[in-house]
Amino acid sequence: MLLLSLIIAEAALETVPKQIAKHPSVVKHAARKGKPAEEILLDRSYHHSAMLKLENAERRGRPDLAHFALLEATSTPLYRNNMLNVYVHTVANKVILLGENVRLPKSYFRFEGLMEDLFKDRKITADNNMLMELKDMKFQDLVDKLKPRKVVGLSRAGARSSAEKVAKMIDDDTAIVVGGFPRGHFSNAISGKINYTYSISELALESHLVIARILYECEKLRLFV
Amino acid sequence: MLLLSLIIAEAALETVPKQIAKHPSVVKHAARKGKPAEEILLDRSYHHSAMLKLENAERRGRPDLAHFALLEATSTPLYRNNMLNVYVHTVANKVILLGENVRLPKSYFRFEGLMEDLFKDRKITADNNMLMELKDMKFQDLVDKLKPRKVVGLSRAGARSSAEKVAKMIDDDTAIVVGGFPRGHFSNAISGKINYTYSISELALESHLVIARILYECEKLRLFV
Repeated sequence: MLLLSLIIAEAALETVPKQIAKHPSVVKHAARKGKPAEEILLDRSYHHSAMLKLENAERRGRPDLAHFALLEATSTPLYRNNMLNVYVHTVANKVILLGENVRLPKSYFRFEGLMEDLFKDRKITADNNMLMELKDMKFQDLVDKLKPRKVVGLSRAGARSSAEKVAKMIDDDTAIVVGGFPRGHFSNAISGKINYTYSISELALESHLVIARILYECEKLRLFV
Repeated sequence: MLLLSLIIAEAALETVPKQIAKHPSVVKHAARKGKPAEEILLDRSYHHSAMLKLENAERRGRPDLAHFALLEATSTPLYRNNMLNVYVHTVANKVILLGENVRLPKSYFRFEGLMEDLFKDRKITADNNMLMELKDMKFQDLVDKLKPRKVVGLSRAGARSSAEKVAKMIDDDTAIVVGGFPRGHFSNAISGKINYTYSISELALESHLVIARILYECEKLRLFV
């Protein structure tokens, strides 16, 4: 039985860091949501001016990207047939472990609430089933825990190939890594743990599209859908 | 040169109808957004109780679905290479015409604002280029205007096939139709204008996934990416 893992790496998904929690744009937004500033998601759409002070700011505050990437992965027949494990590694070195057959909300408003609950409570359950868990974990810790036979990264910086060809090289126990950040390449901490890196298009594709294509090609080889 | 059209049909995307504009949940939400009730998007996440009064309610108030479907289509190399025209036909018989190379916001908050502007002003331009236009138009009017050589619908109710096989049957001047509603099948007004209907999976796939797969297979046959 195939068991693939998908890791969305360095995802721009985190709660507001302490350092900017008192910035007026953050305080105002948190008040409107009725939550403490450090419990809301960092979001460039609302906190742009506050984020100017943050290190590495251009790769942070895009929870919408993680939302799309996660929905893309969890709506595939591969995931729904329990043939795919999905992980989100975040820019702040946390890892979200997703349970089996989780149906994530497509409404961003609901997704945001769910993520805020997860960052606060570290665990979301429903009827005693684990839906999501949050761990303090670096990318390398996650790879060491999963022990995949190989780790395949998809990035514009990789060797030119196609989703179809890459899928043919992916056998059981492979971890596929796709970036969850708005621009740039994997940082060294990530690329150091990747065995092969491929680029599946001449254009810079959005992460969600890369996920859609590689999982679809993996599925075509295995599920005969 | 290939010119495909994608029509997202009966999309659950509209502004709050007059009939429920005075419902407390709508009034409260509109006030928080600082807009008149009839200028905000109908959204089940916020207006569930108000929507109980609406006809056909189970197929309305899901702007998130249109957002995903549109992003999926507009991030493809086909669209970015001007080989795909994208249209949204809505449940209230309006049609959104999308310009060339439009980059839609991935942040739902920004998408929502853009759609609210579009429903109000009927047109969005940037540097004199038309980004989006809203017309009062039924599905059949749109098909009559586009005059495609054939209209191919994708639906669970269609003949069992695969995205790969369907893509091979799609030649120039085809309109591909995917539903933009949360459940059910095309209404008669839509299916009456469709020449062939196919189902590309044994599972009920989300619209955005159907769009990702069919456009990818079309692209593989033409762009050699």
